[in-house]
Formats: sequence, structure tokens, C-alpha cells
Amino acid sequence: MAAPSPHPFDPLRPDEIARAAGIVRPHFGGQEPNFRVITLLEPPKKLMIAYLENEHQNQPIEDVPTRHARVEVVVKGRANENQLFELYVDLGNEKVTQKQHVKGKHSYIDANHMKAVEAACLADEGVQAELRSLNLPAGATPVVEPWAYATDGMNDMSTRITMCWFYLRLLDHPDANYYAYPLDVCAEVSEDLKVTKIYRLPTNPQERIHHEKRPFDRRRIHPADASEYHPELRPASRTTTKPYQVVQPEGPSFRINGNQLAWEKWSFRVGFNYREGLTLHDVRYEGRSLFYRLSLAEMFVPYGDPRAPYPRKAAFDLGNDGAGLNANNLQLGCDCLGTIKYFDAYHNTPTGEPLKMPNVVCCHEQDDGILWKHTNFRTGNAVVARSRILVLQTIITVSNYEYIFAWHFYQDASIFYEVRATGILSTAPHDINAKERVPYGTVVAPGVLAPYHQHLFSLRIDPAIDGHNNSLVIEESTPLPTNDPKVHNPFGVGYVTESRTVEEEGGFDLDFTKNRTFKLVNEKQINPITGTPVGFKLLPFYSQMLLASPESYHARRSEYAQHAVWVTRYTDNDHFPAGKYTMQSAGGDGLASVIAKRRATGVAQSVRDEDIVIWHTFGSTHNPRIEDWPVMPSEKLMVGLKPVNFFSGNPGLDVTPSTQEKNQSVLYTGESAQSATCCQSKL
Amino acid sequence: MAAPSPHPFDPLRPDEIARAAGIVRPHFGGQEPNFRVITLLEPPKKLMIAYLENEHQNQPIEDVPTRHARVEVVVKGRANENQLFELYVDLGNEKVTQKQHVKGKHSYIDANHMKAVEAACLADEGVQAELRSLNLPAGATPVVEPWAYATDGMNDMSTRITMCWFYLRLLDHPDANYYAYPLDVCAEVSEDLKVTKIYRLPTNPQERIHHEKRPFDRRRIHPADASEYHPELRPASRTTTKPYQVVQPEGPSFRINGNQLAWEKWSFRVGFNYREGLTLHDVRYEGRSLFYRLSLAEMFVPYGDPRAPYPRKAAFDLGNDGAGLNANNLQLGCDCLGTIKYFDAYHNTPTGEPLKMPNVVCCHEQDDGILWKHTNFRTGNAVVARSRILVLQTIITVSNYEYIFAWHFYQDASIFYEVRATGILSTAPHDINAKERVPYGTVVAPGVLAPYHQHLFSLRIDPAIDGHNNSLVIEESTPLPTNDPKVHNPFGVGYVTESRTVEEEGGFDLDFTKNRTFKLVNEKQINPITGTPVGFKLLPFYSQMLLASPESYHARRSEYAQHAVWVTRYTDNDHFPAGKYTMQSAGGDGLASVIAKRRATGVAQSVRDEDIVIWHTFGSTHNPRIEDWPVMPSEKLMVGLKPVNFFSGNPGLDVTPSTQEKNQSVLYTGESAQSATCCQSKL
Repeated sequence: MAAPSPHPFDPLRPDEIARAAGIVRPHFGGQEPNFRVITLLEPPKKLMIAYLENEHQNQPIEDVPTRHARVEVVVKGRANENQLFELYVDLGNEKVTQKQHVKGKHSYIDANHMKAVEAACLADEGVQAELRSLNLPAGATPVVEPWAYATDGMNDMSTRITMCWFYLRLLDHPDANYYAYPLDVCAEVSEDLKVTKIYRLPTNPQERIHHEKRPFDRRRIHPADASEYHPELRPASRTTTKPYQVVQPEGPSFRINGNQLAWEKWSFRVGFNYREGLTLHDVRYEGRSLFYRLSLAEMFVPYGDPRAPYPRKAAFDLGNDGAGLNANNLQLGCDCLGTIKYFDAYHNTPTGEPLKMPNVVCCHEQDDGILWKHTNFRTGNAVVARSRILVLQTIITVSNYEYIFAWHFYQDASIFYEVRATGILSTAPHDINAKERVPYGTVVAPGVLAPYHQHLFSLRIDPAIDGHNNSLVIEESTPLPTNDPKVHNPFGVGYVTESRTVEEEGGFDLDFTKNRTFKLVNEKQINPITGTPVGFKLLPFYSQMLLASPESYHARRSEYAQHAVWVTRYTDNDHFPAGKYTMQSAGGDGLASVIAKRRATGVAQSVRDEDIVIWHTFGSTHNPRIEDWPVMPSEKLMVGLKPVNFFSGNPGLDVTPSTQEKNQSVLYTGESAQSATCCQSKL
Repeated sequence: MAAPSPHPFDPLRPDEIARAAGIVRPHFGGQEPNFRVITLLEPPKKLMIAYLENEHQNQPIEDVPTRHARVEVVVKGRANENQLFELYVDLGNEKVTQKQHVKGKHSYIDANHMKAVEAACLADEGVQAELRSLNLPAGATPVVEPWAYATDGMNDMSTRITMCWFYLRLLDHPDANYYAYPLDVCAEVSEDLKVTKIYRLPTNPQERIHHEKRPFDRRRIHPADASEYHPELRPASRTTTKPYQVVQPEGPSFRINGNQLAWEKWSFRVGFNYREGLTLHDVRYEGRSLFYRLSLAEMFVPYGDPRAPYPRKAAFDLGNDGAGLNANNLQLGCDCLGTIKYFDAYHNTPTGEPLKMPNVVCCHEQDDGILWKHTNFRTGNAVVARSRILVLQTIITVSNYEYIFAWHFYQDASIFYEVRATGILSTAPHDINAKERVPYGTVVAPGVLAPYHQHLFSLRIDPAIDGHNNSLVIEESTPLPTNDPKVHNPFGVGYVTESRTVEEEGGFDLDFTKNRTFKLVNEKQINPITGTPVGFKLLPFYSQMLLASPESYHARRSEYAQHAVWVTRYTDNDHFPAGKYTMQSAGGDGLASVIAKRRATGVAQSVRDEDIVIWHTFGSTHNPRIEDWPVMPSEKLMVGLKPVNFFSGNPGLDVTPSTQEKNQSVLYTGESAQSATCCQSKL
């Protein structure tokens, strides 16, 4: 049986990946390219608008976009240098439509290269000598953690440099937490796998340069239960948590057809790519268009320790590492609870073969407490509807850290995007004798500093609120003046909302003190009852923007981290708020630069009643607590999108009121019943 | 069998309520008092500190505080005026220890009085004439909604005035949503049940005074499904939501002994009173003291419509109505899911008899997704622990609105307080012909204005972080300067935290742009690893403070709504951030005044290393959406308390990793499996 044709939004299928590689391969003069990326080149929106209109009206689709791939390869140049090429491949017509030698940029982190760096570093005689000078405990194993080099202006960035941080696996167990023993050795490894520098790290707030060669301080060795998370290395776990199971006797409420998902009144398509991971397309409620595309577009994790070489710790976890590539293989009964649908994804091997990534997304329902309730106090009659939500979750591991990303769909037509940060802090060595408190880190174990850092996310929201031409409205709640004779406010209690519609591309800040609200509206669609444009509002996550100086490389590389809300004109394949190539980037490719460049052309980029994109920057200034050690309890960040005068009433009003017959709760009559008949005792 | 002695924190038991009434009754010269309140007078903290220390060390308790009641009664004075008395009653020694005639204040809303007002209003000939002038549809029933009169300076406040708002029950069903038909009639009723004023409401933005007598506009009549929420009045509900059940085969993980609750490593006592509703006492983790008492202390809901008489709509839902008194009788399978323990409460009748309020608090567990996870990328081994939370929930109905209050306890030693606002908007009539958009309300149905308003909560946090003397620290994350030769910040990326410890009582504002963090610390208890004082931090809810002018009665009455975080010195029975008597209050009794008065005594109220109380003001500026109509989908507000360098590591690290064996999830292989073998079809 033939597989059904892919939908234009579907990720490339394995056969398409292989086909793309086959089409690209002959374009490099017999050299076998290192295939870094073979991913869907998403179809032009112009074509898709017509496509989706026909699709949803069950009309024949005349102009089905041809499947295209975007391919990144690295090949060797004449001087054996790495050359990065980006190619667009027309899979239908089996041809390369665009081939660009991308100069001065690097593709994302190459795991094979990193492994080679690690091996080369450990094998280096200088490194070995340095490690010997540490006089490490017998049986302990040094571990090299290679990091992409965050630009600090101290090196030529035209070739890749890898920072090698050293840790110690003190216990002889493959899952021993080596982050508990950061060593004060550092090495730098070149593109051609040469160790170019070896030095000692500062371990004291006073130390501004690499310090002298001290041996490993045995007083740092501490009990396993303070730093280990793996159950085999820990005392017995608590047994007080009794089993809790979710039973869905009639199965889940969702329906799935390939990558299309329908649940309650929602429908959308699930996408996935190596970089953003989970993406959502053509999000509709009751068939009405809401969002063309939703995705996490970037994440930047700069560290705040000013001492060299720590300013080189600043990771673009999407641009450099890839949320898709690093997605976990989710396990039944562990990562989700209830009835679970898993989605697989495909990436490519360096030789261009499809590579299956199983269970990268899980989909399930959750009970979310009460959706709405009212008790008529005159009759005592209560009506209560419980809230069911649909969750699409993906979890990524980026070296030490984990991020849990989940889209939550609600029956009241709202969407929430939840980020949970967990995993292990990236640690640095700290002088156990230091008397002075480190002002940019927390000591979480003897000799272990957890440096302050930020997590800055960019959520890309491509709205299609009842159509593709939308506007961004900024509304504030403002007291009426009390001393203006033209304004009626005799008791001083009146307040109004004041709105302005954003006319040009730009970045904006949050202000809860004014109840500042960002609305995505369709100015051409007026709600017949409220008399106002239909819209959705952003429920932002309030967080500090980038702390690094605007002149710093951190700031120049992560322009989106200047403001919380950005609006730009839509252009195809524009998914990169910090630039397409973030690896060792020098900056100037981000949202602010793109907007400034467009503005400089003299062509005003109107964003009013146009096809626009909203980018929400949010995150956390993560000054670690010791409670984040050795594995962080999930730190939750939540962003929402809610209808605002879009419908004609509560979209969840028709949810069936809750009954015990369906919900089968159990009345607890345990110790409580006993306690009335026996003497009070201490628990 | 004798009932066990109550714990000092336990609410008054029925026998104690009756006993208190009996002790109080003879103190009014034979007049039978109207018992408004018979509640626990909580024991002096001084005694309880010693008590709890002994209790937790399993030592004999020598000085058990005598049970006391606080009683409010209303009796008639010589001129038949209401006189409010507050009495303290020593239940052990059966005597009144304090009796105060509270002059110039009113007790909270008397439901019986309100019913009498409603009847008197409807029976009034003038009102009847006004209603006839409306020419209402045949079969429709006018409904009077009496509201406490929010002070606006237009009347003497020494007697109670009730505002009667009129609605229409268009459908002949007791649960018809009359808020869908607000009438433009208003009446005022005096203490002695006389209708003192009848007038028409403004219905047009231009109208500043009562308008002419227009009949009810039939064009306002609209289909039931747009405004009704009761299932008997609505089309069939959706059937797409399949059953979802929580099964706990070994029962819940909590243990309950009377009002003491132990769950995982938490322990605390459940309290309840007529005003605050659910209170928590002696909150501990692993036996270590965290909070002496947690409660919602006040809620203010001022409306923003400047037109008279709407400034009189401003409700203190705790001080005037009572979160305890208005608590719902929660139903199995409706308000909670899983294995549920319910707590009852007791109030008193006007004649001083105990009045049982069943099921006012429910307690149950929830799965909360992933608590922590790490995958070792070198071995591929993942360890994941799911998060279980304990929820204590209470739901109140205050006329049109519902509030769902829930304390969430986490295995990582954090606590979250969730508020969900639901129920029905309080509506006002609107001229269906009005062309001008109302700038302080949303039209949610024909002729129905949902006015802008605010919900301002005060969460009272009485910390006992490793002891009773605590301090409030305000920490900010600040970039290091780039141009100071004394500061090492060569790459411009360094940042530090800067802290100040609050010395005196006062109010403070939030500032996420500085990552401003409020920490409750014990300066005498230094974390041996981090070297910093042990503490908990507040995760505030970012929201706009009161919009009304500082000179307005709204502002003077709700002083706590000026700032987001207040710190005061602890004093016994100080649970009233807007004053003890909010009913028709004139202001000047709130947090700011109390602090100013204490400061004016010249005795500086140091709050450093003292027994302090923190008050967090948060809420929402609720500018209604049509999606909030006719019943609001829950609007969530969340406040958190998290340990910060209190423990020696992640307190949830010993939670047993998740397994499918325990969690019994189900793999979904439904339509997805089919979709690979059949043609793509539209969902």
C-alpha cells in the first residue's frame, strides 16, 4: 500500500530525506558532504493560504506546494577548511533550486566533532600532565565537557574553537554526577583537534587571571547522597508516595490522523524539526483560524560570571544545539501519565540517511481542576464543569540541563505554553578556602560554585486571527483624571482602557503596573456584540531581560533579549530571532538588526493589518538555590494566549457539567473517622 | 466516648460555640443578641511558641492556652439603633474577658437583613410603580440584588444603606441567569427597611445623571444559549470529552488526625473561620518550622464605572461577606477528582446555636507532571521523578462571582496558592442604541454592560522560617558596571545580586525588570553550605495595584492595595489589612494607617530579626472579555513560596523515580495506526 502523500506541513519523511541527500550529493564534485541538516523547507505562506482555505472548505486543492528540503552540508575547501553550504531542494522536480556558500558562519554543533574534541583533549599530553598535577583521588575519572565557544572577541571566529571544561567522576558508576566535582583545569581545542591552550580556572572571587597549579583539594569530597541523583548511588527513596493512576475507560478524547490532531473543538498539525523541535501549524478552534504557526524559536543561556574564561559560557540551545535533535525518547509511565500518543521524528545521519528519533513528542489529556462554576445563591444549585486539557510535550537534554516544553490546549479556547527547567546546574570550581562570598554564584557543595545565569526564550507566534492580516494592539488600564472638568469622574474611582495599534516593526516592554496588554487583533473582523475587533491576547511571562551590557557580545548575539514583545512583518522561513547561524556568531543578525536594516531601506515596514509575527522573549534570571542541586526541581514558566472578544461567549460553556458518575471519585474516610473516637496522638 | 481536646489552633467546636453564646447572652440585660460571629480567638503566639516546641519534641505541654472565643453581637440601643459589640470569651473559665461597644462600625453583611431588604424593596409601592413603568415582558420576574453600599461620601454611614440593583428573570426557571437582563432601575433601602430613593440608572456613556423613564427595550431579548449556563436551559452539551478518572489503588498518601494533616514531609493544621475561610497553621517540612499561619486576609473588588451610583459597587468579599461563610458545600466528583477528604466547619446561627457547614474544604492529591529529570547524554540513561501535589481547596460564592482558593504543597518543599476567579460578571444596563463605545466596560449581550473592575487580594504570610524571628530581604540582579576600573567585568557580561534587609514596617513594589525578589530569611540561621541565611522567597503574582485615585474612598478603604508587598510586626489577631470592620468603612484602618500610627508614636517598628508578617497584594484588573460571559472560564492567579538556601539540596531528590509499573499508563495506538494504511482524510 502506498503511504498517503504528506501534508505540506508534515516534516520530511524518511524517503524524502534520503531523496534530498541523493539530489544534493552530486553538487560537490564527488566529495561526500557532511549532511548537517535535511529538513522541510516549509511551503510559501502565499501558497498555503489558498491551500488551507480549500482544505478546510473541503474543496479540491489545485496548487499543492511541491515538497522542498532545506539542506545544510559541510564540505572541505582547498585549504581543508570547513565550508558551509545551504541548499534548497525541490523534491518533486528532483533538483537543487538554490545553493549558497555561507561564508563566515558555522552550522550548529556537530556531535561527532565534539566527541572527537573530547577524545583529542583527553589524549593530549599537556592535558594529561595538567591532570597529573591535580593529584586526583585514585579511581576517579576526569570527564571532559566540551562547549561551543561563546564569542568574546578574544579569538578569530572563522574556525570552530571548543572550550573543554573538566569534571571528575569520583564514583565508579557511569551515571555518577561529575558536575559535583568541577576541576579548575580548562583547555581549548581547535577545529583540527589540536589543544591550543591549557590553563587553570579562577576559583576565588579575587582571582582575575588563571591561578597557580593547586592539587585537587580532598576536603571537597563529600557524601554521595548530597550530589548524586541516580537511584543506584543514593540511599533508598521515599516510599510515602502512593500510586496515582489515570484511567480513561473510553480512551482519549483526541483524534489523530497522521500529523493532524483534533481534540474537542481544536484542530492543528504537529510539526517537528531539528532546531525548534515541536512546531504547531494551522491552529484552529471550531474551524476558525487562530495561528498559522507556533514554535519556540530560540533560547539563550548566558552566564554572569565576569571572570575569564567564563564569559565564553553562553549557549544558544536551539541555534547551536537544536531542540529537535536533543529531544528525549519519552517513556510510557515516566514522562506522561494516562493514555499517551507518541510522535516520532526523523533527522539525518552525516551521510544523508534518515535517522529515526522515536517518541520525541507525547500527547495526552489532563484534568485541570475547575473550568467554571456557579452556584445560584438563591436556589443553592451549583453547576460545575471540570477543565480537561490536551498536552503536547517534548523534553530536551542540553548537556547538563533539561527543558520540558508543553503546549496546553484548553476547552475555553486558550492556549498555554509551559516551560519547565530541570536537570543539573553547570558548575564551576570554587576555592574551598575562599572567605569572600561570590557575588555571582551560589556554593551548592564543597568547592562547587553554581554560577548565576539567565535563560532567555523566544516564543514565535505567527497569528492568523480570523485571517492572515492582523495587528498588534497595546492596551493599558488608566485611571480617569480627577481634576479635568471635561471628564466625568466625581468619585475618583473611574478607569478606562487606552489602546494604540502598533504601526511599525519594533520591540516593546511589559508593564504590569499599567496592566499593559498585548492583543493580536483582526481589525477587519468586528465582534458583532462587543463592537470591537476580534483578537487574542498574550499572557506574558514577566521576567528580566538580558543583564549583559548592550555592548557585550552576549547582547549583540541575542538581540531578541532586549525586549519582551517584538512584532515583525512575516517573511517565509524567518524563524531565527538571533540569526540563522548562532554558532560562534558575532551578532548583528537578530531581530533588532533585521528591523533596523529594513527600516534603513526607507521602505516603512508597516505591521498594521498585515501578515505579522509576534516574538515573546521571556525567561528567568537563574541565581541558583542550593535546592536546585544536584537536580533542579522543575522551575515553571508559563505563557498564555487567550481569546479576547473573539467568540460570542465562553467557548467552554457547553462542556458537560461534572458528575460523580463519570468522574468516580472516592470519599476518604480513613484516619479522620478514627480520630473522632480515639485520643489525639502526634502524627 | 469523650471527644479529644481540641488543639489550640482548631476552630471552635459546636459545643464551644453554644457555650460561648451562653456565656455572652446574660451580658445584654435580657435582650437576646443577634450573634453575628462566634469564632476562635486564636491563642497568643507567645504561648503557642512554647506549646509547639514541646509538641514537636513530644514533650509534655505545661501551659496549654485556654480556649477563647471572639464574639460579635448586634443589639438594639435606646433609639432602636443597632449597636455592635465585640466580646472576648474565656471558654475555660466561662467568662467574658473583654466587652467593647464598637461605635461607628458595622458588622459584616447580615444575610437575613439582606433578605428583608429585598422583600421590602419589592413590596414598596414606589418600586412597584417604577417596575410597571418598564412595561416588562409578560411572565418575566424582576429580581432584586441587594449590595452593601460602598462608601462614596454621599451619605451618613452610621446606619446601613443597601443598594438594590434590579435584574429580570426572563425565563421561568429558578436558575435562569437574570444577570443577562439588568434593568435600569435602582433603589436604596435604609436600615429600617424603608425605600429611601428610587431612580433610573445611566445607560449611556454620555449620561451623567439618572435618565428618563424608558420602558424595557424588547430588542434586548436574545436566545437563551447566549446567556444561560444551567444545562436545563441550554442546548445539549458537548459529548466529546471522554471520562477521565483518577485511581489511587493504595489510597491517598496523606494522613489525617483531626485537623492535623501530614503528607510526604509536610505537616500542618487546617483552620477555618467565617471570614478568611481556610487557614493553615504551623506549617512544617521535615519537622522544620516554615510558617506560623497562612491565610487569605482580604479581597476588594472595586468597579471602575465613574457614573453615579456605580462607585458604590466595591465589595470587600472577606470583610463584608466572609470567605468562610460563603464557602460552598463541595461535592464528590465535581469539585475535586481522586480520593477526597472533606473538612466540615461550624458557624453560628443568629441565636447563637452552632451551624454546621459541611464539606467546606476538600483535600486531595494531584499528579503535577515532572518534578525533575536528567538524562546523562553519555549513557543515555534517564531518571525522572513525577511531581505529586497535595491540594487543599475551598470555593466561595459571593453573589455573582465564584472564587476557587487552593493551597498546593509540592514535594520540593514549595507551596503555591492558586486563585481561580469564575462565576458570573456583575452586569449593568446599557442603552442598546448607544453609538459610543463605553470606555469602562464591555458589552457582552444586547443591552448588557460588564463594567471594568479589579480584584485585589491580600495574602497574609506569617513566617516562622526556622524560628519566629525573621527578616525581609529585597534582592535584585544588577549588571556589573563596564566602566569602573575597580570592578572586574572585562567582557561586560557580569552581573551580581544586591540585597537590602528591610528595617522598618512598610509597603514595597514589584519590579521584574530588576528580578526583584522578596526573601523571608532567618538571619541567625546560616546555611552551612551556601553560607547565607536560610530563607523562603515569594513568587509574587504580577498585577496592577488599585486604579482608583488615592483620595477616593476606594483607596482610603483598601490601603493594602497601594503596594504589592507589605511587612509589619506581628501582633495577635491582626488579620485585617483593610481594617477589622470594612462594611461601609470610611478608611484609615488599613495597613498603611496602622504602620503610620505606630511610626507616629515615635517607637520605630523594627522588622529586622523580629516576628514579622508579610502581606502580598495581588489580583487582576478585570476588563471583561465576552468570553467571560455568561460564566467566566477560570482565570488563574498563582503565588508561590519556595525555599531558597533553606535545605542542603533539592528536597524532592528522594522522590522515587517514575515507573510504568506504578503509573500504569496506556499506549495510544488508535487512529494513528490506521492513518498509515488508509488515505488521508479530513478530520
